[in-house]
Amino acid sequence: MKTDIEIAQAAKLEPIGQIAAKLGLHEDQISCYGKYKAKIDHRLVAQYEGKPDAKVILVTAITPTPAGEGKTTTTVGLGDAFTKLGKRAVVCLREPSLGPVFGVKGGAAGGGYAQVVPMEDINLHFTGDLHAIGAANNLCAAMIDNHIYQGNALGIDPRRVTWRRVVDMNDRQLRCVVDGLGAKTNGMPREDGFDITVASEVMAVFCLASDLEDLKARLAKMVVAYTFAGEPVTVADLHAEGAMAALLKDAFDPNLVQTLGGTPAIIHGGPFANIAHGCNSVIATRLGMKLADYTITEAGFGADLGAEKFIDIKCRKSGIRPSAVVLVATVRALKHHGGVAKAELNSENLDALKSGFENLERHIKNVTEVFGLPCVVAINRFPSDTEAELQFVNDACAKLGVPVSLSEVFSKGGDGAVDLAEKVMALADGENHFQFVYDENDSIKAKIDAVAKKVYGAASVTFDRGAAKTIADIEAMGYGNLPICVAKTQYSFSDNAKLLRAPSGFVMNVRQVRLSAGAGFAVVIMGDVMTMPGLPKAPAAEKIDIDRDGVITGLF
Amino acid sequence: MKTDIEIAQAAKLEPIGQIAAKLGLHEDQISCYGKYKAKIDHRLVAQYEGKPDAKVILVTAITPTPAGEGKTTTTVGLGDAFTKLGKRAVVCLREPSLGPVFGVKGGAAGGGYAQVVPMEDINLHFTGDLHAIGAANNLCAAMIDNHIYQGNALGIDPRRVTWRRVVDMNDRQLRCVVDGLGAKTNGMPREDGFDITVASEVMAVFCLASDLEDLKARLAKMVVAYTFAGEPVTVADLHAEGAMAALLKDAFDPNLVQTLGGTPAIIHGGPFANIAHGCNSVIATRLGMKLADYTITEAGFGADLGAEKFIDIKCRKSGIRPSAVVLVATVRALKHHGGVAKAELNSENLDALKSGFENLERHIKNVTEVFGLPCVVAINRFPSDTEAELQFVNDACAKLGVPVSLSEVFSKGGDGAVDLAEKVMALADGENHFQFVYDENDSIKAKIDAVAKKVYGAASVTFDRGAAKTIADIEAMGYGNLPICVAKTQYSFSDNAKLLRAPSGFVMNVRQVRLSAGAGFAVVIMGDVMTMPGLPKAPAAEKIDIDRDGVITGLF
Repeated sequence: MKTDIEIAQAAKLEPIGQIAAKLGLHEDQISCYGKYKAKIDHRLVAQYEGKPDAKVILVTAITPTPAGEGKTTTTVGLGDAFTKLGKRAVVCLREPSLGPVFGVKGGAAGGGYAQVVPMEDINLHFTGDLHAIGAANNLCAAMIDNHIYQGNALGIDPRRVTWRRVVDMNDRQLRCVVDGLGAKTNGMPREDGFDITVASEVMAVFCLASDLEDLKARLAKMVVAYTFAGEPVTVADLHAEGAMAALLKDAFDPNLVQTLGGTPAIIHGGPFANIAHGCNSVIATRLGMKLADYTITEAGFGADLGAEKFIDIKCRKSGIRPSAVVLVATVRALKHHGGVAKAELNSENLDALKSGFENLERHIKNVTEVFGLPCVVAINRFPSDTEAELQFVNDACAKLGVPVSLSEVFSKGGDGAVDLAEKVMALADGENHFQFVYDENDSIKAKIDAVAKKVYGAASVTFDRGAAKTIADIEAMGYGNLPICVAKTQYSFSDNAKLLRAPSGFVMNVRQVRLSAGAGFAVVIMGDVMTMPGLPKAPAAEKIDIDRDGVITGLF
Repeated sequence: MKTDIEIAQAAKLEPIGQIAAKLGLHEDQISCYGKYKAKIDHRLVAQYEGKPDAKVILVTAITPTPAGEGKTTTTVGLGDAFTKLGKRAVVCLREPSLGPVFGVKGGAAGGGYAQVVPMEDINLHFTGDLHAIGAANNLCAAMIDNHIYQGNALGIDPRRVTWRRVVDMNDRQLRCVVDGLGAKTNGMPREDGFDITVASEVMAVFCLASDLEDLKARLAKMVVAYTFAGEPVTVADLHAEGAMAALLKDAFDPNLVQTLGGTPAIIHGGPFANIAHGCNSVIATRLGMKLADYTITEAGFGADLGAEKFIDIKCRKSGIRPSAVVLVATVRALKHHGGVAKAELNSENLDALKSGFENLERHIKNVTEVFGLPCVVAINRFPSDTEAELQFVNDACAKLGVPVSLSEVFSKGGDGAVDLAEKVMALADGENHFQFVYDENDSIKAKIDAVAKKVYGAASVTFDRGAAKTIADIEAMGYGNLPICVAKTQYSFSDNAKLLRAPSGFVMNVRQVRLSAGAGFAVVIMGDVMTMPGLPKAPAAEKIDIDRDGVITGLF
């Protein structure tokens, strides 16, 4: 079998103007970045306001395992299946972060014959959006410290600067630093730290803004520090929002590329799915909805985190409403939830599968009963899956009244998801009872309670004293009616990564709460949250190479 | 008078394909980045090996003053004058750094009616080259610290990591930091610091590499740390050069834009002119030489720094040979050298002008006698210049046998430099006696001596003990035959910024020497060198804004 990059490099791509034409766009409405990438003017969303919207299909997954589920791969393959069926479809994905490419994760542009291309570009700098977001974040940081250095008229407490710098690299050395050292002219010594770029609130703001004016207004509202008197300091206080928005001007236009099957793909924005909401930009999804009949998009991590935030944060604020949900699972991952070690995942084990199926069942019930959406299960097929195992999943889903489809997009591209696409279309044509998990006017604690109990299966929620105080402060500041964004482990419904399957009766603890006033949510931190990854012992970077003609190898 | 950005935004630009056609390039040979920017495949240089080379015109200047000289403006206007005269000309410039745009300096894309456009793009992210260079630099940094963290098989001494991280922002807070703090899992605590991106050795390497293979080989040679045993650790030891070069793949293709007069401009690379050589990339200049009859390029700071390094570093290694030099001066700046305060520069003062002219005279003699090149003085005219003042400069230059031309490109574009262009052409057609300042096989101390005495006018050079030891170490490591790159103040021929005019008899002290093994020079530091600027009390960023349609204001 060829590697992902070999498949991607062997593909014959269509000129991007041709891909744009499939969406009814002419050359004037796009801005080419080389032959196979373009940006689409985001103002088209407003211009096309009267046009009917595409049906939105949300692809989400069971609780992630080391075995991998293939959510992006399924999203891409499903798009190609729609294209094969003669439907006008567009795939809306998140932009990969550069940093992890050099670590263990490798690329994030699908896999096998279900990829978005050009994959090297998409995985490396793409059109520079993440660099722009990093620059906007770091301009704000430099302006905060410069303000303190130049007399500190606002009275910013150097111990309470909450804004961190970012770099798009897995660099653990920068998690915790003391800066401003060395001389009086080098700033004010203080504790500080760096996050990876996608963890910046600028990224979350970028992904939720409806236009450049909204973007600027959201940037202005971000709280970056507190004064000695305890008052919040915002970007507006530093007069930084104009320059930050100017840095984001080009980035804010969604990026157009193609799948291996020639389906248009809009790839734009990619916030963390723990401390942020983990979905591609609102402007990209809304653009996709104006340019096609089916807009297929994905959300980060499992459905407990990604789909919940897609609904309670992204949909709530943008008016986007999904018509159907695809829940991706693999037999191997379900067996992992059933207690099977990674080395044994290739052997049939119906008992473990049955036990692990509880994870899928909980997600199905969340989607259909809590979110009120029609759901189809996509089993991302592996060669090791046995007929008996596949039959079990089929029967178990049938008992729950949910259709199942075998997806073989990795090896067959769009041909491997024609059945899935047909089932999705049938569901999307039906009724749905879409609902949020909570009312935004509930108290913050009530909202946390609702998500923890209804979605995660917790028995109760406790709060560290500091967290409770921050909640009171946030409500006192007038931000009590924001949606919440829970940051917890993605490896369990609970806040304990070791509790696989579908645990219940557990107590969850809120360790910390942070206000993302620009993004418009309160981040609720349960357990440890990592916002700056590290490189592994043998980084993927050591194997990446390029030849005299610019052909890159070692990306995966 | 309109501001620079108003002039730039009012201009009607030609589609970039049309600009490319002026250089004989067809659409297949360029890669568009939007409608008005493109990248040119760098491999054309090799493909066009047999084609005759354009004449290279180097634009340099007197010793810089706060009054400003207008070197880039003259370079751009001169290009447009060549175009007006029906000659095929291309302008080769450095890429502006993003950081300073938000400080005091403003844009770096020319001024008035002699600008390169689109100016907002060029001054902000342009085509992302600086971001790519920053990412390559910071990947290397992350791999060094990861190596130490993951067992440190190479025995890297954390106290002797010489590689610094970079950010393209004026951020004094990061000059000196302690990182790796907070927990055992956060790396190894050590002293560290950040430079602005253009100060990275990656930028210098990028600007001197002849192709992707040479780029990779130079990256591999960079010394990033020393072991506990005192041995150098290179990028090759960390296996980072392939991934770093992959990150630089697109960036390495030179960028094509246009001047306001429709002259093609190649803008590519922009290393610091103190700790590096301060010229645009070799690949861009060589490309310009294959695509036009006249290639007009500039070097950083005054001719003592920029032109000397252009010749002794860039020309020596690339085989590029200039045919003529334009020395830019202003009456105001010469009066400043003659001791006039900034507030008084608009008043006629022939005595001060006469005194300050000594600075120009020294530079003229350096160009003609030390470098052996024909030289024309371009007086960048200001409204406050009096006839008597201009006449003095004219007469004084005539006595030195050097032609003078009044340049009015700021207010008239190419029309303001037709006379200058004609004088340049006449000189470029004549003979020249181009020579390096020193033989690369001389000892490092002899090379420093040659530059300090022949170019700067020093009486002698002293060496701090550490600097002398580093020189011995560098020679012992086999790098003794590299050119030198002096980092000193740009505001004086000497190493004391306060010594204006043409000081002589002074003693220069070498404080520190650093090896840039990848770039291929030894950096000789005289005095303090700043590699991370700070923001001023009222940063330009506070005034930058963008409206709903993406129109940027406040850039200058």
